[in-house]
Amino acid sequence: MTRYKLVLEYDGAPFVGWQRQDNGPSVQGEVEAAVAAFCGEQVNVYGAGRTDSGVHALGQVAHFDIGRETTGDTVRDALNHYLRKAPVTILDAAVVGDDFHARFTAERRHYLYRILNRRPPPALDRDKVWWVPKIVDVEAMHDAAQVLVGPHDFSSFRATSCQAKSPEKTLDRLDVMRDGAEIHVTATSQSFLHHQVRNMVGTLMLVGDGRWTAGDVQVALDARDRAAAGPTAPPEGLYLVGVDYP
Amino acid sequence: MTRYKLVLEYDGAPFVGWQRQDNGPSVQGEVEAAVAAFCGEQVNVYGAGRTDSGVHALGQVAHFDIGRETTGDTVRDALNHYLRKAPVTILDAAVVGDDFHARFTAERRHYLYRILNRRPPPALDRDKVWWVPKIVDVEAMHDAAQVLVGPHDFSSFRATSCQAKSPEKTLDRLDVMRDGAEIHVTATSQSFLHHQVRNMVGTLMLVGDGRWTAGDVQVALDARDRAAAGPTAPPEGLYLVGVDYP
Repeated sequence: MTRYKLVLEYDGAPFVGWQRQDNGPSVQGEVEAAVAAFCGEQVNVYGAGRTDSGVHALGQVAHFDIGRETTGDTVRDALNHYLRKAPVTILDAAVVGDDFHARFTAERRHYLYRILNRRPPPALDRDKVWWVPKIVDVEAMHDAAQVLVGPHDFSSFRATSCQAKSPEKTLDRLDVMRDGAEIHVTATSQSFLHHQVRNMVGTLMLVGDGRWTAGDVQVALDARDRAAAGPTAPPEGLYLVGVDYP
Repeated sequence: MTRYKLVLEYDGAPFVGWQRQDNGPSVQGEVEAAVAAFCGEQVNVYGAGRTDSGVHALGQVAHFDIGRETTGDTVRDALNHYLRKAPVTILDAAVVGDDFHARFTAERRHYLYRILNRRPPPALDRDKVWWVPKIVDVEAMHDAAQVLVGPHDFSSFRATSCQAKSPEKTLDRLDVMRDGAEIHVTATSQSFLHHQVRNMVGTLMLVGDGRWTAGDVQVALDARDRAAAGPTAPPEGLYLVGVDYP
């Protein structure tokens, strides 16, 4: 068997999420169908991050094993051929060793959250950004974000559906900056709890619109209680940008 | 009567173009319906550029006259309310004098053409870029583009459907540059012939992929014959970026 690593870009809007589910089309299901069309083998495709419905990827990573031994470029082009009707594209494919696992050997995951912060709604980026019409204080959001950087118990930012064994994670970086009419929140960690990025963004927005201070974010973090933090930001602003491996 | 100037952003994909037509929804028709819903008046909304089906706008300009006298902000918010189901948004609205005409007083129009130049197809930017899988020579395209800058008879780059009185236009600027996996072509002129930007981009692509030289572009220009130039680039890469007024 040969193991292939994939780097994928996708539009999350039409999918129930990365993971195969009974209630609609998934990115994983599309890629598995493309692999089957390519080589006739039914495989599991393992992703680094199980992105939710509506969440996008600029650089999701996945892997699978098949009997067919060929080049990464052949796999990339063949899968893109079979994926041509879906908003999913293979940016890169490569042969990797059996010690590579998209999920379990990932060292760092990078996310971007895009907020369109202007009074007129998005026309070209519908389903691609969170539209926040009231102008918010980005500097205050960035300062408050630093409260969350480092090793913490992130129970206050964890979805009730989260299956992680521990709520303790180390957040390497959480930056908030303005880029024209957009606000970009970038987050890096070895791994994230379910909804962690969206819950952090939703909480920082309370700071941005003046309802909360950085001190309130600290209180929410210390509470270790989901009810203590802010609302969950919508999925359409979130992008899995990339995943680092040793 | 009060004249209002609008600046609009829209996604051209679902429309037959800016202009009202019998064969489907137009941006002009959507805006006119929003004006009617706002004030009960049936008006003509005049646009600076009659973008084709699939062509987008980041800063189309339009104007209309109504009896209702109010602020630009009120008009902007009201029209955005009635446009909320369409991928059309009013970025700005302002009261202007009767001497303002979106089309006839425009001094310069700015267009952007986005090419995704990578082997994997677009997933997130479907219908937003022209996908060119073979890597092309951007520097050669930029150099050849300079042949077209200045006052010329652009008959070779003019659609047969073009209704302009004269094929003579002055192209102020035509730049081609790479931005990551994208190539951006920016074009500025007081006005353009029908399909002029797309015909110039399609012709420059012949240079980018090595089939033509800058000299061939010169020959094509001098021929004053549409058949002498390259193919028309697809509409989905084109954006009307902005329009300047005195």
